[in-house]
Amino acid sequence: MPKRIVIIGAHAAGVDAASAARKTDRTAEITLITEEKNAGYSRCGLPFVIGGQIPNFTDLIVFPPSYYQIMKLNLKAETKATKIDTGKKTVETIDKTGKKEEIPYDSLIIATGASAFTPPIKGKEKQGILPLRTLEDGQRIDQAVKKGAKTAVIMGAGLIGLETAVALQERGLKVTVVEMLPQILPAMLDADFAKIVQEMLEQKGIEILLGKPVEEFLGTDKVTGIVAGGEQINADLFISAFGVRANTQLAAEAGIALGETKAIKTNARMETSIKDVYAVGDCAESTHIVTQKPAVPQLGTVAVRQGKVAGINAAGGYSLFTGVLGSAVTQLYDMQVGVTGLTEAAAQRARIETVTGTIASKTKADYYPGALPIKVKLVVERESQRVIGAQIMGGEEVTQRINAISFAIQKQMTVRELAKADTAYAPPLCETWEPIVLAAEMVLMKLR
Amino acid sequence: MPKRIVIIGAHAAGVDAASAARKTDRTAEITLITEEKNAGYSRCGLPFVIGGQIPNFTDLIVFPPSYYQIMKLNLKAETKATKIDTGKKTVETIDKTGKKEEIPYDSLIIATGASAFTPPIKGKEKQGILPLRTLEDGQRIDQAVKKGAKTAVIMGAGLIGLETAVALQERGLKVTVVEMLPQILPAMLDADFAKIVQEMLEQKGIEILLGKPVEEFLGTDKVTGIVAGGEQINADLFISAFGVRANTQLAAEAGIALGETKAIKTNARMETSIKDVYAVGDCAESTHIVTQKPAVPQLGTVAVRQGKVAGINAAGGYSLFTGVLGSAVTQLYDMQVGVTGLTEAAAQRARIETVTGTIASKTKADYYPGALPIKVKLVVERESQRVIGAQIMGGEEVTQRINAISFAIQKQMTVRELAKADTAYAPPLCETWEPIVLAAEMVLMKLR
Repeated sequence: MPKRIVIIGAHAAGVDAASAARKTDRTAEITLITEEKNAGYSRCGLPFVIGGQIPNFTDLIVFPPSYYQIMKLNLKAETKATKIDTGKKTVETIDKTGKKEEIPYDSLIIATGASAFTPPIKGKEKQGILPLRTLEDGQRIDQAVKKGAKTAVIMGAGLIGLETAVALQERGLKVTVVEMLPQILPAMLDADFAKIVQEMLEQKGIEILLGKPVEEFLGTDKVTGIVAGGEQINADLFISAFGVRANTQLAAEAGIALGETKAIKTNARMETSIKDVYAVGDCAESTHIVTQKPAVPQLGTVAVRQGKVAGINAAGGYSLFTGVLGSAVTQLYDMQVGVTGLTEAAAQRARIETVTGTIASKTKADYYPGALPIKVKLVVERESQRVIGAQIMGGEEVTQRINAISFAIQKQMTVRELAKADTAYAPPLCETWEPIVLAAEMVLMKLR
Repeated sequence: MPKRIVIIGAHAAGVDAASAARKTDRTAEITLITEEKNAGYSRCGLPFVIGGQIPNFTDLIVFPPSYYQIMKLNLKAETKATKIDTGKKTVETIDKTGKKEEIPYDSLIIATGASAFTPPIKGKEKQGILPLRTLEDGQRIDQAVKKGAKTAVIMGAGLIGLETAVALQERGLKVTVVEMLPQILPAMLDADFAKIVQEMLEQKGIEILLGKPVEEFLGTDKVTGIVAGGEQINADLFISAFGVRANTQLAAEAGIALGETKAIKTNARMETSIKDVYAVGDCAESTHIVTQKPAVPQLGTVAVRQGKVAGINAAGGYSLFTGVLGSAVTQLYDMQVGVTGLTEAAAQRARIETVTGTIASKTKADYYPGALPIKVKLVVERESQRVIGAQIMGGEEVTQRINAISFAIQKQMTVRELAKADTAYAPPLCETWEPIVLAAEMVLMKLR
């Protein structure tokens, strides 16, 4: 009898799990269950459709219906998983027509993702508080702009919040970002780097209000304004970018253990506390490579990697997930901003004693026309002298610098090794002394 | 009495040595000797002035005269070092007026570089065979174009040859490249990658003749044509890009040992066989990180690093140079081409058994407008499964991918670790699955 693999969720983690399972077991019966109408699309692309860089929301569908046919994957869209029975090894579902089903599994992969979250704020039940998590969310915001919205308030200055702020400003709206914490991108950047990004956004015309928690949604049925830090702000459009929460209810109700981050606890094979049940993506907890503590970075790169590992294991193979570093990058107007490993603040929270080095340089030889500014901050553990984190912002070539430092962290490179490292150079492409090497020199000077 | 440090050569290696020496010893007497009129300019930038991307040759002067004043460096330009006496510890010089001098040293740094080299070809004594090594060489080529040269023959399809070919074609000349070996960029790329670059150059209108050694220079006083592989090619301009040879005569005459590469032998402190004498840059041999064999990559990045190490040591400090990987990159039209570590062919020559993986991908999310093609070839040692080399070509973000793999090689990352590595992603900046990770997957599939 063919192995029955059931996957709840059909985005980055779920579809990559299904593909890996199929490549591991050619005969398995693989079923994907998703509440959404569209499966296998890129959430990360949503702000760039709103901003107009990508023409259509449907362009984001990375895995079209034909993919599931070719890979012989049974996709159940617009179907909700209502219960997992780990004793009987079944998943109960209900589809949009109300039809219920009990689907048996040999291996189950939970890829239920995360949901946009609004704190318990007075008036939060009112209409018109729009998150940006699903394709439909994106279309709703796009429609509001097309119907003539002129002003927007973004609640939350994380990655999604700022990417959406930029997108809406590029569409001509007057945008205000409201953040409870005293800096933007608090999960990604240290305050010094956040300040520079903030000033750039303000120069582009985005208003940013920091240290202002949203206290109330105003309006009768539909929100027409908010109160934040005592101040009233009216707008046509209200984007909820407070953050996301792992969708763990289904797992918790089935007795699957959650970890200290409140996401589903997993081991290196992405197995949960229950045999033959795996969890991957934004709902799953794994281990941070530097701190060796539980972490839930909720990134697409992590989702596809975990999905692949769980898919191989669920299909009878053997694969390990080696942990997360939280490497992430974004583009805000012409500025690229990236991070890997720990920020100085995160290291402090993890009680790691650090030395940092920051350098401003250029992306091409100084004399080469079109050289753009770039800034690197390196975080080093003082005792071991090992590189444990970096933040980089610049006009180009940020992503792969982040990857280079990510590799260095994963292979426990010391800052001294980094300062001596062999790098490539050509006048149109970089400086003779690579900025990340210069940042390492800055750290060494402090260590002397 | 202040320490007397003499440096023969005043470009990348020499000036960086002088700067490092000054930072190490604030009171040392530091003297730089160069035959050239201009010191401290970027040779790597020359083709881009000829191509018109950089306005003036003088823009390439990275260290202006004021730099030597501020750093209290005694620069003797247009002065030739004629003899090193390691017994008396002196350098004999002659300046452009014919004035001779004997300069005593406590530490000597030899940074004599390399010179363009023309093989013993019939007629090589004729006028008009132009190398591109010095600023004056560049000005000479530029003048020839301004005086109406319509056609050019480039002899040699290495980096300088091709960069100059592109530059001249961009200036409107009809360009033919003649190469003795059966592929372009033989020191940098494997034949499969070289072929793709070649086709791109041919599509842009550059004629490339492979496997054709130059056999004769034709013309009376001035060269008007060449014979290559039996074929006669006439042109207005003849660029000698056969390669460079380390300038070792001065060192050899002083009894300083040369290595098996025929460059000056050095240890990890950049010391030569003679006490208190260092050698750095294009004239110095050092150790390849993968093969642990002598290597002379003759790259600017290596020159500045070696210069820094020798400068610190010569001034009484302690610094080690950790070896070379040959990381290099160039831009030819819109194509960026990079290498680090060993090519498949170089590994074969070093008798290392390899497995390779090649992948074609894009530089942004597939759905993001403007995504450019990128191609990665990974070279892995079969037994250890360690990454030992990579070649990458693409429309953008090649340099830092080379650096990332350079770090991986230096920290002995296995291909399995690379396939699992944490990388950063955003739709406008890269794919979810980083191409270098996918190339690692390709290798793993062959290792199974």
